[in-house]
Amino acid sequence: MPTAYAELCSLLKHAALLDSLAQLASWDQETYMPEKGAAARAESVALLATLIHERRTSPRVGELLAACEGDAGLTAAETPTGANLREIRRDYDKHTKVPAELVAEIAKVGSQAQEVWKKAREGSDFAMFRPWLERMIGLQRRKAECLGHAPGGEAYDALLDLYEPGATAAGLEAVFTPLRARLTDLLGRVRGSKAKVRTRCLEVKIDPAAQHAFGLAVIEAMGFDLTAGRVDTTTHPFCSGFAPGDTRLTTRYREAHFTDALYSTLHEMGHGLYEQGLPKMGKDGGPSDLYGTPLADSISLGIHESQSRMWENFVGRSKAFWKWALPKSKKQFGKALSKFDAKEYFAAVNTAAPSLIRVEADETTYNLHVMIRFEIERALLRGDLAVKDLPGAWNGKYKEYLGVKVPDDRRGCLQDVHWSFGLFGYFPTYTLGNLYAAQFWEKINQDIPDLNKQIAKGRFDALKKWLNTKIHAHGRRYTAGDLCTRVTGAPLSSEPLLRHLSAKAEQVYGV
Amino acid sequence: MPTAYAELCSLLKHAALLDSLAQLASWDQETYMPEKGAAARAESVALLATLIHERRTSPRVGELLAACEGDAGLTAAETPTGANLREIRRDYDKHTKVPAELVAEIAKVGSQAQEVWKKAREGSDFAMFRPWLERMIGLQRRKAECLGHAPGGEAYDALLDLYEPGATAAGLEAVFTPLRARLTDLLGRVRGSKAKVRTRCLEVKIDPAAQHAFGLAVIEAMGFDLTAGRVDTTTHPFCSGFAPGDTRLTTRYREAHFTDALYSTLHEMGHGLYEQGLPKMGKDGGPSDLYGTPLADSISLGIHESQSRMWENFVGRSKAFWKWALPKSKKQFGKALSKFDAKEYFAAVNTAAPSLIRVEADETTYNLHVMIRFEIERALLRGDLAVKDLPGAWNGKYKEYLGVKVPDDRRGCLQDVHWSFGLFGYFPTYTLGNLYAAQFWEKINQDIPDLNKQIAKGRFDALKKWLNTKIHAHGRRYTAGDLCTRVTGAPLSSEPLLRHLSAKAEQVYGV
Repeated sequence: MPTAYAELCSLLKHAALLDSLAQLASWDQETYMPEKGAAARAESVALLATLIHERRTSPRVGELLAACEGDAGLTAAETPTGANLREIRRDYDKHTKVPAELVAEIAKVGSQAQEVWKKAREGSDFAMFRPWLERMIGLQRRKAECLGHAPGGEAYDALLDLYEPGATAAGLEAVFTPLRARLTDLLGRVRGSKAKVRTRCLEVKIDPAAQHAFGLAVIEAMGFDLTAGRVDTTTHPFCSGFAPGDTRLTTRYREAHFTDALYSTLHEMGHGLYEQGLPKMGKDGGPSDLYGTPLADSISLGIHESQSRMWENFVGRSKAFWKWALPKSKKQFGKALSKFDAKEYFAAVNTAAPSLIRVEADETTYNLHVMIRFEIERALLRGDLAVKDLPGAWNGKYKEYLGVKVPDDRRGCLQDVHWSFGLFGYFPTYTLGNLYAAQFWEKINQDIPDLNKQIAKGRFDALKKWLNTKIHAHGRRYTAGDLCTRVTGAPLSSEPLLRHLSAKAEQVYGV
Repeated sequence: MPTAYAELCSLLKHAALLDSLAQLASWDQETYMPEKGAAARAESVALLATLIHERRTSPRVGELLAACEGDAGLTAAETPTGANLREIRRDYDKHTKVPAELVAEIAKVGSQAQEVWKKAREGSDFAMFRPWLERMIGLQRRKAECLGHAPGGEAYDALLDLYEPGATAAGLEAVFTPLRARLTDLLGRVRGSKAKVRTRCLEVKIDPAAQHAFGLAVIEAMGFDLTAGRVDTTTHPFCSGFAPGDTRLTTRYREAHFTDALYSTLHEMGHGLYEQGLPKMGKDGGPSDLYGTPLADSISLGIHESQSRMWENFVGRSKAFWKWALPKSKKQFGKALSKFDAKEYFAAVNTAAPSLIRVEADETTYNLHVMIRFEIERALLRGDLAVKDLPGAWNGKYKEYLGVKVPDDRRGCLQDVHWSFGLFGYFPTYTLGNLYAAQFWEKINQDIPDLNKQIAKGRFDALKKWLNTKIHAHGRRYTAGDLCTRVTGAPLSSEPLLRHLSAKAEQVYGV
């Protein structure tokens, strides 16, 4: 019977090896591919995707999985193998439950709807996008029906589960509701504060090549292995951990606001350290026996995001970080930063103010943007909100939670691409990432009491080791919720994040 | 029956679409892949290669091919479809005649032998490499036996045919023998000349970034489409025309000798223009119906090399080229080149002198290096020369043809990687490239009488159009020999190349 398990893992490894080429193709498309290569590339990638899908949903995988599940010696819940089989089953069901026709239709409609959305956003023309969104929501309801959900749950759960396995709309609501109220309150106090935060230090112009060199030096100090990864520039930063020993980050540079690129780089590096920390590589440097199976894969988007947010916000926006990084950046950038000190940078990168656009939002208000989307997409899916009423609902919530008036749909409900190609249940993982990061961060600081002193000296090894052993090494052995309880001793709560944001508001605004 | 032909083309297109990803992976490995990604990448690529091979050798392809061959309406020799079927049959036989076990063994032994060769070359230790070369020759004989050859031919023909379809050892000998005698004679006259060619103008130091910008400007002027291609740097320059709209060149820069990078770039661009000129792309910008079939593929390595050598040597080392390029490079490089004129560059890039190393050889002596390898590999394969006697034979020929004494095997018979991984019958295509280029070049100058004037003005459109319509557009419709006769009115001859080299020797050395 262990033979069945070995064959199962081997088949999944083959699928992953092919998938690594699909990811390379996608990375290349964003970085170096000449524009006229796009049409043929799309055909190559579609063909490869079919081959990968065939392998992941093959009847042989189903047979081997059933054989393993019939062997009590393999399935014990507390063992790595038992966890692997549990998650292989989850993936197999996920991949086989939705008929290929529906997958293809969603892909096709999504691709067309995305083009319509681009134009609709440009012209701030919601009416143009509306029929496409209605159609997409219909398709997502059908998809949710195929996937199914736990008794007492709702259709939204089935979609959420694709990105955050085990999470439910009701569970999110329980954590988000108090968070929303207290964030709105915190934001009100910040807005009432008379403190003026100076941000001139962010506006210094720095040569992109120097920014790139600085970014590399910082992430190398943090433990990102540049012999097993690299950093390139793209319009939209991303991280692709596409193969053992090959994790690629991208960022983007503008001359002014060098901290934008820096925080993009730190964010993607947080994802990258997770990818490098997963047990994908064997002792010989090639793929491990687990590569392609859940035990070598990341848990959820929320946990992935917790890693990026931790390095971006908890490390990178700390006073300790700037104590170390400012002298280092002054060395790299020459005289440009000479009149500013670490305190000024700390305050400037921690301002909080309500705004219209999610991707430009600060650490505090970001979660309010996310919660608005969660509430709206859940209502859309349930049918509690009609698509035609979306702009009104959106604008009302922006007024209520953030206190801002949305001037047009371009800067309102048309700002994000996600819904156009069918990403429903995805937005909440951004805030889950912040919540997990905060809760892990409190525990880390208990376990490494002098962490701030270490960071101020540019020492990140203890932090990296903690993340490697407590989070990364397990792959998908534990679900996100279980891992959180196991590592921090408590289920996910909004308290650590609120404490973190309140402390910053106090330091920056004195409120 | 046309249905069978359409299905056949479609299957081959699928194989080509997957192959384009294999070529992307290989390009990435040479350009941007982090070093620790190598082991997993090797596994991904091997897996993909298996899938591609399965598609190209599938029984379905055999059935469809047989069905098409049974349809007289498709197979007429003078039609594009007839030519396509002729060449699809050639490929199918080539792919199916050699058993998978032998292919795998050659790959495995080749990979090990290459590692041994590296060490043997380093230590100039032929004895270390000898048993591996003996083993590889045995494998190549078995491969040649599987492939078969025309009656009256020899085993070598079967291998040569893989790279230069239709060529034979006897045919090469007939062209090479007079060429060798007259090149040796020409070289003797050059060596006896009292002319001193000044080469200081090559030693100027130029920033690699400026060299890169200059190279791009030159190849763009020559008609290489940079929206359908790009240029990167690698240790060994190459061209990979891996998909419709995606042809990538690489080159390498050193501060001194900027002409080295320039000629590498021109050489690879010659290959690249051929790739861009093949009918791979459909009207919609995606793959054409012919993509993946021989009609959208290059004829042979010799014809491919004729394109690279033409731009490198016939265009790039001409006086007309320097009349245009020198003012352009002075603009790009600032004052560094100010004291030199086009005449000085023309002479400096056209020196001829015997040397030990093929890849460093000039235009005249290069062919002697190639002919030595052809004679030796043919004798090895026939059994006329024992591997143990290789160094002696090598050194004797270098003395006889080039007049140089080989000091050690590192700079002698161990200098090239080719034989270690089984490339027998490959070397002659380099000289075939020079011969075809020269013969095409004479015809082009008849067809475009003011070509030199055009080049001196930086106008390459007529030349590019000639190559596009006379050579590139046909794909593999004609064999190399037939194309040569068709385009130039005569079968391949060594006279045009000898005229070209003699004229240069006269201009540079007065002999």
